[in-house]
Amino acid sequence: MMFSESIANLVWQNSLLATTNEAENAPIILAGVLLSLVVIYLASKIGGELSRMIDLPPVLGELLGGVVVGASALHLVVFPESGAAASDSTIMTILQLINDISPAAVTSIFQSQSEIISVLAELGVIILLFEIGLESDLKELTKVGYQATIVACVGVAVPFAAGTTGLMLLFHVPVIPAIFAGAALTATSIGITSKVLSEIGQLKSREGQIIVGAAVIDDILGIIVLAVVASLAKTGEVDIFNVIYLIVSATVFLIGSILLGKYFNQSFVAIANKLQTRGNLIIPAFIFAFFMAFLGNAIHLEAILGAFAAGLVLDETDKRKELDEQVKPIADILVPVFFVTVGAKVDLGVLNPLVPGNREGLIIATFLIVVAIIGKVVTGWSIFGQAGVNRLAVGVGMIPRGEVGLVFAGIGAASGTLDKPLQAAIIIMVILTTFLAPPCLRFAFKQSTAEAESLEEAKLIG
Amino acid sequence: MMFSESIANLVWQNSLLATTNEAENAPIILAGVLLSLVVIYLASKIGGELSRMIDLPPVLGELLGGVVVGASALHLVVFPESGAAASDSTIMTILQLINDISPAAVTSIFQSQSEIISVLAELGVIILLFEIGLESDLKELTKVGYQATIVACVGVAVPFAAGTTGLMLLFHVPVIPAIFAGAALTATSIGITSKVLSEIGQLKSREGQIIVGAAVIDDILGIIVLAVVASLAKTGEVDIFNVIYLIVSATVFLIGSILLGKYFNQSFVAIANKLQTRGNLIIPAFIFAFFMAFLGNAIHLEAILGAFAAGLVLDETDKRKELDEQVKPIADILVPVFFVTVGAKVDLGVLNPLVPGNREGLIIATFLIVVAIIGKVVTGWSIFGQAGVNRLAVGVGMIPRGEVGLVFAGIGAASGTLDKPLQAAIIIMVILTTFLAPPCLRFAFKQSTAEAESLEEAKLIG
Repeated sequence: MMFSESIANLVWQNSLLATTNEAENAPIILAGVLLSLVVIYLASKIGGELSRMIDLPPVLGELLGGVVVGASALHLVVFPESGAAASDSTIMTILQLINDISPAAVTSIFQSQSEIISVLAELGVIILLFEIGLESDLKELTKVGYQATIVACVGVAVPFAAGTTGLMLLFHVPVIPAIFAGAALTATSIGITSKVLSEIGQLKSREGQIIVGAAVIDDILGIIVLAVVASLAKTGEVDIFNVIYLIVSATVFLIGSILLGKYFNQSFVAIANKLQTRGNLIIPAFIFAFFMAFLGNAIHLEAILGAFAAGLVLDETDKRKELDEQVKPIADILVPVFFVTVGAKVDLGVLNPLVPGNREGLIIATFLIVVAIIGKVVTGWSIFGQAGVNRLAVGVGMIPRGEVGLVFAGIGAASGTLDKPLQAAIIIMVILTTFLAPPCLRFAFKQSTAEAESLEEAKLIG
Repeated sequence: MMFSESIANLVWQNSLLATTNEAENAPIILAGVLLSLVVIYLASKIGGELSRMIDLPPVLGELLGGVVVGASALHLVVFPESGAAASDSTIMTILQLINDISPAAVTSIFQSQSEIISVLAELGVIILLFEIGLESDLKELTKVGYQATIVACVGVAVPFAAGTTGLMLLFHVPVIPAIFAGAALTATSIGITSKVLSEIGQLKSREGQIIVGAAVIDDILGIIVLAVVASLAKTGEVDIFNVIYLIVSATVFLIGSILLGKYFNQSFVAIANKLQTRGNLIIPAFIFAFFMAFLGNAIHLEAILGAFAAGLVLDETDKRKELDEQVKPIADILVPVFFVTVGAKVDLGVLNPLVPGNREGLIIATFLIVVAIIGKVVTGWSIFGQAGVNRLAVGVGMIPRGEVGLVFAGIGAASGTLDKPLQAAIIIMVILTTFLAPPCLRFAFKQSTAEAESLEEAKLIG
């Protein structure tokens, strides 16, 4: 009786202590978040503007800005998931100079702050995809749906097959890690690709819509591939039911939400028209977008797929333009958090050939990069029935692996399937495809415009 | 050697385990945040619209919407700081139905999700104060600065003196808890007051600017009072140096930022004009606002004071209107998070007179409420040299304690200074002043408009 009472007391005191500590830490966590956001915004704006000056897509600069403030250089924006401790974070050092924080509290503050920035980045990519959905045209997208599906499937099959067999035959990698690395080659970063397309004004072009459609389908295929590979790595077997579940739920989710959307459209406009307090349009839109994102997440697909579907649905309403204008500033402050953290999570240290341990990884990486680029560029030539389409642009648009590739590398590392060199090789492949894609995509589109223009000129002269 | 190696191994494995767990939990935390935001937006919009229908300020409805989804009723939005466990959260129950989560993970997911929502709420009130700063007129504010200071000082002194002595004489409360409760009476919620003023279109009126100025000064006085009382409760002595530090730093911060702002204005406009990528105006503005908020926090004042100062400074630029328009949608999606969580953190259970334990608290609360209202309403009559000012409106505008009052109650409870009935009494006082103020403020302003109108009419007729 006495004993259990004193334990209860202890538990109670501990929970009270925890509560007090949390309440005491809350302002420091907030300070960390504010300072991180200031750093992220500075990195994104300086990087974006410099990139634009030399005629490259701003998003490349945002990614590079992230590299500068992240794990590779300034260590201002670092994350415990990538193995950083609180003492590695320059921001935590600054906070410790200002406040008197106990070592235990430092770790917990660093964890909380990083989690919050990560969720803000996730909200950023959710809003980016919502915006891309709003800017996309559902009719145009369904028109190119068939082509997009083929591009996505080829873009998954070719890099996977070439990567896995190449690693096994050329580098004698065992079958399971080879399959894992092959799977990492299948990803396409819908975020980076669609952002570049939007920046160079090609999102609504036929090529742009094929790429976006293919990237969405690629994302779904990527989730299925990841589920297969992860269960293979864990149990040595493929969980067939899970794969069927994912395929069915993804199909039902995307098609279902678009069909349902046709009815929901009317109600949405009616509701928004009835509301008279501030946020009468943006709040209902965000309730819909976040709920769809939650649904996408809940059925073990991805939150961004839900947000994209929500954007597509609301694109069909006559509130589209007004909504677009209001989403813009919100995207402006949240999307950079995503791109800068993607860059910040990259550790360029693996690229240093002077470190002997990196060399094996660099050699494998060279092979992976070649497969990664060729495997996606060929997808452009899988399109048929679309005369005059810029095949190179479509293929190049599928190249960036971005955050999706990093997820593969992260899960592979955590599960212990990938050894150090192979893991480094995948990260290098992800970095290079991600950073090469924006300028290449711009180049691919410019060429077609130049060709079209010279054709026009030739006609005029002729 | 062996031992330390195995420990190092253990630590490494644990940190790897933690990393894997975090990576696995991340999508569930995101799902929790998305679902919480959907609930918060629904509560804010339904509450706000219903409130508007019966001609009350929408913010009252947002607070009440928060009460409905919070600790008092649906338990959808609850917080560990208020003593809630993961099992008390309806959202966590939903997430557990969807995902297979271990009990340990549930607690950590609940903690993370709550922390993220709390920080989003903090960002909400930071952006609200930035917006209020943008909408305020620095010249008008300095014109009424003297009056505002007197209103703030009277509004701190009267409730504190009346509350503390009343509790000691009438209720025989010991001196330290009486001082603590008296201190809780001094607060004014700048967030709630300024939001109501903005909603009824009185923010730029002379009364509105006096109230906002007084609320800002009250906020600073409140921080000083809290520092005094907290050190009194902890050590029994007042830390004079800390008090002097707070007074000096607050004065230097507010005046310094306004003076410096005059030079920064020009550079800000020049920078914004040079930038050519998306977010060229909003991102520099947010860098400035968040940095000022960080500074306010870092010198142990409040983040919202920094954001308010940043808004005041940028109000003086010719980019003001454009900026105002872009901040609006961002405020629309973040500010409701603040008001709904303020409501959600309130537990109306303390108001139930059928629970015998509540009765003592309710009796003390009645006294505190009377002091809280009278002590602030009298401040209106401390204004001099401003003929025709609506004294009642100024006094009523200072009534809501809001989040500041809850902070007092929370710290008092955590430090063990306040016994249960007194703690409950303070919470009841905070609830009632917060919920009464919006309709009363509207009424006080309406009366003056009606008077002015009938005066005009009388003139016209005469």
